Amino acid sequence: MVARTVDLRSDTVTKPTETMRAAMATAEVDDDVLGADPTAFRLELEVAKITGKEAGLFVSSGTMGNLISVLVHCDIRGSEVILGDNSHIHIYENGGISTIGGVHPRPVKNNEDGTMDIDSIEVAIRDPRGELVFPTTKLICLENSHANSGGRCLSAEYTDRVGELAKKHGLKLHIDGARIFNASVALGVPVQRLVQAADSVSVCLSKGLGAPVGSVIVGSKSFITKAWRLRKTLGGGMRQVGFICAAAFVALKENVEKLDGDHKKAKELAEGLNQIKGLKVDIAAVKTNIIYVDIVEGSKITAEKLYKNLEEHGVLVMPKGLSRIRIVLHHQISSSDVHYTLSCFQQAFSGMHQENGSYSISTSRDVSYS
Amino acid sequence: MVARTVDLRSDTVTKPTETMRAAMATAEVDDDVLGADPTAFRLELEVAKITGKEAGLFVSSGTMGNLISVLVHCDIRGSEVILGDNSHIHIYENGGISTIGGVHPRPVKNNEDGTMDIDSIEVAIRDPRGELVFPTTKLICLENSHANSGGRCLSAEYTDRVGELAKKHGLKLHIDGARIFNASVALGVPVQRLVQAADSVSVCLSKGLGAPVGSVIVGSKSFITKAWRLRKTLGGGMRQVGFICAAAFVALKENVEKLDGDHKKAKELAEGLNQIKGLKVDIAAVKTNIIYVDIVEGSKITAEKLYKNLEEHGVLVMPKGLSRIRIVLHHQISSSDVHYTLSCFQQAFSGMHQENGSYSISTSRDVSYS
Amino acid sequence: MVARTVDLRSDTVTKPTETMRAAMATAEVDDDVLGADPTAFRLELEVAKITGKEAGLFVSSGTMGNLISVLVHCDIRGSEVILGDNSHIHIYENGGISTIGGVHPRPVKNNEDGTMDIDSIEVAIRDPRGELVFPTTKLICLENSHANSGGRCLSAEYTDRVGELAKKHGLKLHIDGARIFNASVALGVPVQRLVQAADSVSVCLSKGLGAPVGSVIVGSKSFITKAWRLRKTLGGGMRQVGFICAAAFVALKENVEKLDGDHKKAKELAEGLNQIKGLKVDIAAVKTNIIYVDIVEGSKITAEKLYKNLEEHGVLVMPKGLSRIRIVLHHQISSSDVHYTLSCFQQAFSGMHQENGSYSISTSRDVSYS
Amino acid sequence: MVARTVDLRSDTVTKPTETMRAAMATAEVDDDVLGADPTAFRLELEVAKITGKEAGLFVSSGTMGNLISVLVHCDIRGSEVILGDNSHIHIYENGGISTIGGVHPRPVKNNEDGTMDIDSIEVAIRDPRGELVFPTTKLICLENSHANSGGRCLSAEYTDRVGELAKKHGLKLHIDGARIFNASVALGVPVQRLVQAADSVSVCLSKGLGAPVGSVIVGSKSFITKAWRLRKTLGGGMRQVGFICAAAFVALKENVEKLDGDHKKAKELAEGLNQIKGLKVDIAAVKTNIIYVDIVEGSKITAEKLYKNLEEHGVLVMPKGLSRIRIVLHHQISSSDVHYTLSCFQQAFSGMHQENGSYSISTSRDVSYS
Repeated sequence: MVARTVDLRSDTVTKPTETMRAAMATAEVDDDVLGADPTAFRLELEVAKITGKEAGLFVSSGTMGNLISVLVHCDIRGSEVILGDNSHIHIYENGGISTIGGVHPRPVKNNEDGTMDIDSIEVAIRDPRGELVFPTTKLICLENSHANSGGRCLSAEYTDRVGELAKKHGLKLHIDGARIFNASVALGVPVQRLVQAADSVSVCLSKGLGAPVGSVIVGSKSFITKAWRLRKTLGGGMRQVGFICAAAFVALKENVEKLDGDHKKAKELAEGLNQIKGLKVDIAAVKTNIIYVDIVEGSKITAEKLYKNLEEHGVLVMPKGLSRIRIVLHHQISSSDVHYTLSCFQQAFSGMHQENGSYSISTSRDVSYS
Repeated sequence: MVARTVDLRSDTVTKPTETMRAAMATAEVDDDVLGADPTAFRLELEVAKITGKEAGLFVSSGTMGNLISVLVHCDIRGSEVILGDNSHIHIYENGGISTIGGVHPRPVKNNEDGTMDIDSIEVAIRDPRGELVFPTTKLICLENSHANSGGRCLSAEYTDRVGELAKKHGLKLHIDGARIFNASVALGVPVQRLVQAADSVSVCLSKGLGAPVGSVIVGSKSFITKAWRLRKTLGGGMRQVGFICAAAFVALKENVEKLDGDHKKAKELAEGLNQIKGLKVDIAAVKTNIIYVDIVEGSKITAEKLYKNLEEHGVLVMPKGLSRIRIVLHHQISSSDVHYTLSCFQQAFSGMHQENGSYSISTSRDVSYS
Repeated sequence: MVARTVDLRSDTVTKPTETMRAAMATAEVDDDVLGADPTAFRLELEVAKITGKEAGLFVSSGTMGNLISVLVHCDIRGSEVILGDNSHIHIYENGGISTIGGVHPRPVKNNEDGTMDIDSIEVAIRDPRGELVFPTTKLICLENSHANSGGRCLSAEYTDRVGELAKKHGLKLHIDGARIFNASVALGVPVQRLVQAADSVSVCLSKGLGAPVGSVIVGSKSFITKAWRLRKTLGGGMRQVGFICAAAFVALKENVEKLDGDHKKAKELAEGLNQIKGLKVDIAAVKTNIIYVDIVEGSKITAEKLYKNLEEHGVLVMPKGLSRIRIVLHHQISSSDVHYTLSCFQQAFSGMHQENGSYSISTSRDVSYS
Repeated sequence: MVARTVDLRSDTVTKPTETMRAAMATAEVDDDVLGADPTAFRLELEVAKITGKEAGLFVSSGTMGNLISVLVHCDIRGSEVILGDNSHIHIYENGGISTIGGVHPRPVKNNEDGTMDIDSIEVAIRDPRGELVFPTTKLICLENSHANSGGRCLSAEYTDRVGELAKKHGLKLHIDGARIFNASVALGVPVQRLVQAADSVSVCLSKGLGAPVGSVIVGSKSFITKAWRLRKTLGGGMRQVGFICAAAFVALKENVEKLDGDHKKAKELAEGLNQIKGLKVDIAAVKTNIIYVDIVEGSKITAEKLYKNLEEHGVLVMPKGLSRIRIVLHHQISSSDVHYTLSCFQQAFSGMHQENGSYSISTSRDVSYS
């Protein structure tokens, strides 16, 4: 029997807070497919303001935010998008930009830090008046922070350079900002500055910020007008959507300040795990709330056994391939959870886990889940 | 200044009731993209039970429900769907099955009552081993009740016959059940019986049933497994979606019984409007909650003037072309609203509207909107 | 044993003439994917001139010509095309505009004469600034002559009116001119006049004109530039294509004048068949080279038996449904073939076919096939 | 004034030989859309035999061959294909598999020799029962010889290993065999052996083999049946296509033996160019008929000037980026042409080209072009 659960699979597993529930209970709502929901409108306006863009549109997920953004920028048959070969859009979104949108992806190598070399991007751009056999590059996509690079952040300067390149070639720049607030907090740079060069940004509210549902995409008014129509085509238009927007608004107001704590806990946990013989973490790479842990070859315990062992003690992590684990911190993971997690890992490698201790700790944190 | 608003544009404009808000406030939720939200699961199970199907999946709109259903049945490139030339999917869903899904529609003439002739359907079916120049028919779609036919209902017998035809040719049958509960109530036949022959049904909860957001699609387990994956591709996967599912569950439990009242009010309003010189309503066609009103040629008032006049008095209706109005009743339209609406129409045609009277009436019904 | 073959299935079955073979043997060719084949260029220029358009592009089939044309005009995701519900593009081209191109078709009823009512077209047009749930109408398609209407022709005046409607709504007009030369000859109106209002035309050279392969699409230079790129995408770019263009050029020069004879033979055959008890032909409808023959209900012979009987005597026709036959005349059907065909039909219905007679006739016409 | 032209841009620029013209002049043809052209059938059978596959289908280009093959294997919405990031399909085919076919490409790094690491391929495979966010891998594509790797060849053993991997994961293997005969000749291994592990192969006849038009795709009967239907959808069905098939048949019979000479001339030219100060060729990489020449940084002449200079002397090459040139040998490049080309390069770098000499040489080779 599991006494406590420490869910580190993703920052999407957070439960809505009491404030969110309260906001939902009193939210003013209307038919948003007719463009009339005031709470949705207020949220969209707020995210537009934070990102420094003209307008915003609420969508039900980061995947929908990216899908709509790419499809709006690539609205003409024969379009190509340049994106990281290790980016979320390319790897984790069902290939939707192609299979649903008919857009051709041109992946460029992601460096370890989540960037793509500017030169490599430029070489990949296809001139619309170019060879008969080329699709037409319309868009470059960045991801900040970059999930598969362990949550590392793109600097404003790097993003600006990509933006200049895009402008030079008449292309658009989209930023997958699933964790743009994590990047902002870690870099100490306002979100608006980080996305200054972007034509569109998909901002997720249900990851680190802990909203129950949703993302907001932002861009120019004309971009949002097209996005609004495409959202309807996908069936993503929702009627009295203000309820979940109200919760997302709370997330935006209350949870940004919690991100720094998540990053500190990630660092603490990473350092602890790295000291376990049999595990290896690139500490320098842990810049935000994501940790990649490698099980060293020849380790005493197999990956499979490790997962099972952790799960038996209520610690949930995400396997990434055969010998790599992803851990994501979020505001509902307490310091106590971090210590408990560490002790579970240690026990798995040493066989000396103290089960009693963990039980007593678990009581205190259950409150935050209620 | 508008003293009251009677919104008859659609049954999607309803505001959530207090019970719904209460249900949301206490809903148990979890990450449903990971398949873990218990409230979503409970709702999906309930709709599956009501419709007599194996499994269900919550989606954010009727459009998404139809889109996913058509695409799952037509998963192979080169598929064709037979549907009504006046159906919601063909006319009002952005052509998404083609523009997003690459499915070729083969519209068959909708009769006045929303049916298609069985013979016409059969003629339109293309044999998969047939001519080299034919796409392959995979699916037939029906719509019950049928919106553009004024909400008229398809009988269980008719649906069975189409189902038999589908089976005979190895095709699937999908029912757009945006208002299947209206059909059930009007015909006095359980929903389960009406969709018995269908392989999938899209059941809307945010139309007549008044839920804030959402539909549930139902079908076999294998259908739902594929639908689940496709929902993710579209970006329709939502995290702690249980909140809106909780409200939808209330809609299902509390509002089905209100539909009969909506139908009666629709009949009453239709008869009143038909007595106005200059308007014409096919009374016999008003079977559920939708009324089509035609402005007779040579009428004293133009359509444009009429809409303006009604709007000034807070009565919102939906123009359908140049001389046709659509009116939809729902549970937040009171008898008083019906009388007020009638008086506004009469005044528009006679020029003798009593503004004071309307003001006094409006007070009482504002409660139902709070 | 079959003594002769009279292939009336389609006008695509013609064999290249000696002049065509000679033209091929000496054709000057070059790599046309690099835009360098002089014979292709000469053919494209000639068809552009005949149709009064700026430029032309050789494509391998009428289907490719229509597909490319529709896709170029509907280059933006979310486009809709209005076309006849009985048109070749809608019925006989694999639904390619949707399944390959993602274009949503909005079929409008074809009248018996191949036209669509102007009013019905206008009602079907969707305003690009219109309702959120509408795709955007970009294109109207006509077909002249209209195959499924028995080869009846659209007048220049009708086409002009559709063109005016298109212009008024900012739409493009495409004409499927698979048999535009038949229409021109039958109406006594130059091709250029018939397609004056069109933004693009697909002109087939391998139907009535008897070229071995190919169509030419024509339109503005900017249309052809886009078409050229799309042809490459489809894999329709061909290297030393001048050979088949050389034959097509001969078809254009030598065979237009033969069409009138085809039409006369069609009329003669139609009248003969109509006199057979058990068959029925709408003589007035036979305006060009196509005949639809209906087997009267209660006829002595079943359709299946009739086809078999005709085939045994070398007469090949195309079944269209259970009791309808399509017959297409072309320049390699002689008067003698027409008489032989008639006698075969008569025999099938009377049981008194004179096999010997047919043998002697067949000798003479084999020459034209060599 | 240009005295001679040495077209080294591609092996697609060859002109049909006299034998080909003769074969065309007497080709037996019939309507191949109805599946009746005997010459097309004979060619398809022959290529099927040579490649050891069940059946073949003539298509108008290598691009169409690859497009159809990928789309047949990836016939279900949501499919993904693994291919080289430097492969012809990914770089030079307009992104058609996505923009027309909705297939998601997953490029894997091409090594210098045109292979992809087996491990890298395996890592990229997505389990169809795998994560909700993954498209489903259906196909692996190889290219042999590999154009962008300078025409290097994949061994039968390497291909077998990829085939085993495909089989292990339930995937199909397609080989882009645009120059599979070059690979066969260079490796001294029969084509059949090289493609033994493949489910489909696209064999080009209009590149090194010098046919005017066309490729043949081969595979199982069921693959070809689906390909035949898809070819029609694309508009690639051609009527009396036997003419160009007749020429392609000659190419197959007469020109395979010329490839070895092309390879030798390529080697000779490569070695000559490598001795020019300012140019660099990886001699070891020149295995077939393609040469990549790099202009060394700091060279006396800019790339632009070099192309212009060469073109003025009738030597046509293909620029690949800013400082790289592609040269392709073919059977209509004589030894004299090779020497002339070398002298033009030398002159460009030394400024001492002997124009007279070149004139006299050109006379002799003009014959082969007549």
